[in-house]
Amino acid sequence: MRNGQETRDMIIRRSAELFNSAGYSGSSISDVMAATGLKKGGIYRHFQSKDELALEAFDHAVDVMRRVYREAAAGRASATEKLLGVLSVYRNRITNPPVKGGCPLLNTAIESDDTHPQLNRKVRSAMDEWLSFIEGILREGIASGEFKADLNVSEVAVFLTSAFEGSIMMGKLYADNHYLEMYYSQLQRYLLNCVKQ
Amino acid sequence: MRNGQETRDMIIRRSAELFNSAGYSGSSISDVMAATGLKKGGIYRHFQSKDELALEAFDHAVDVMRRVYREAAAGRASATEKLLGVLSVYRNRITNPPVKGGCPLLNTAIESDDTHPQLNRKVRSAMDEWLSFIEGILREGIASGEFKADLNVSEVAVFLTSAFEGSIMMGKLYADNHYLEMYYSQLQRYLLNCVKQ
Repeated sequence: MRNGQETRDMIIRRSAELFNSAGYSGSSISDVMAATGLKKGGIYRHFQSKDELALEAFDHAVDVMRRVYREAAAGRASATEKLLGVLSVYRNRITNPPVKGGCPLLNTAIESDDTHPQLNRKVRSAMDEWLSFIEGILREGIASGEFKADLNVSEVAVFLTSAFEGSIMMGKLYADNHYLEMYYSQLQRYLLNCVKQ
Repeated sequence: MRNGQETRDMIIRRSAELFNSAGYSGSSISDVMAATGLKKGGIYRHFQSKDELALEAFDHAVDVMRRVYREAAAGRASATEKLLGVLSVYRNRITNPPVKGGCPLLNTAIESDDTHPQLNRKVRSAMDEWLSFIEGILREGIASGEFKADLNVSEVAVFLTSAFEGSIMMGKLYADNHYLEMYYSQLQRYLLNCVKQ
């Protein structure tokens, strides 16, 4: 028998995967009931509305991804290795990503930009954090002499992020890891010729 | 007074913008009624279901974008200029894009990948056409000696597309053209150092 907190956490975890796959608008409370095995009352005991659940589910998805990215960078010897580690998180697992449905930042950005201001603010804040993380690795590489000293750190972070998120979209669209391999191969060239000393 | 064909075309045009902004799942028939000024019967006279309308609206959005891209490439002197022309279509207009709501391929890819197999097939086919278009420009640049002879054409096309679509997501997320400028600046470096002879 689960206690209240465990049930709440289970609802958040399963809703995060549901919303990341079918979208917030595309998921009804009936879908949340099916995903959690709970009745409507069991869900509304913990969350006042689908919107409140959506915001918590997004936070949870971001927590999962933050852990995955930090782990992918940890213990790497150089800034280049850190970037390659972080930016290869979807390689070989585009059909089985860390959070089912693909990248929660990408999916929620696309869904929220014209319609959900509260969610949109949350995605911006998560994207700000991500961009700072990438910029930190870039500055580390400049400090160690690994990257060009005059690198435009914010520009490179935006370009790396754009190509990374776009490649996840491509791989998911075709349900084919090969698109991630093609992206990764050119990413290495870009780093070698445009970022490294 | 509009005739039947004009009314049908108007429904498709306005639905394309509605769906591209709010998503297919996020748009109800009431939203289509509000966008077109028609009653429910006036819409169902022309389309059997929201799904049928969604497929036609997507085709229309792709037609608009195809025209925009062909025009952006036309009359450019070199393959590099063609690529830069096509890949700068959203510069300075991320908040006022050719089809309201952003890139229909990107938006529909994200929404359909886990949920709408028919739409997903249509996006794949439109993306195949786009990739062939970019590959054609790359091959032209190889033939003219402008691009590296040993360029991996399909890899570069996937990378260019990923970065392009990702930058549209970023610009839309922050409702800020500056993200497109940052992308464009690094795109030029990538072309110069990884694609050009």
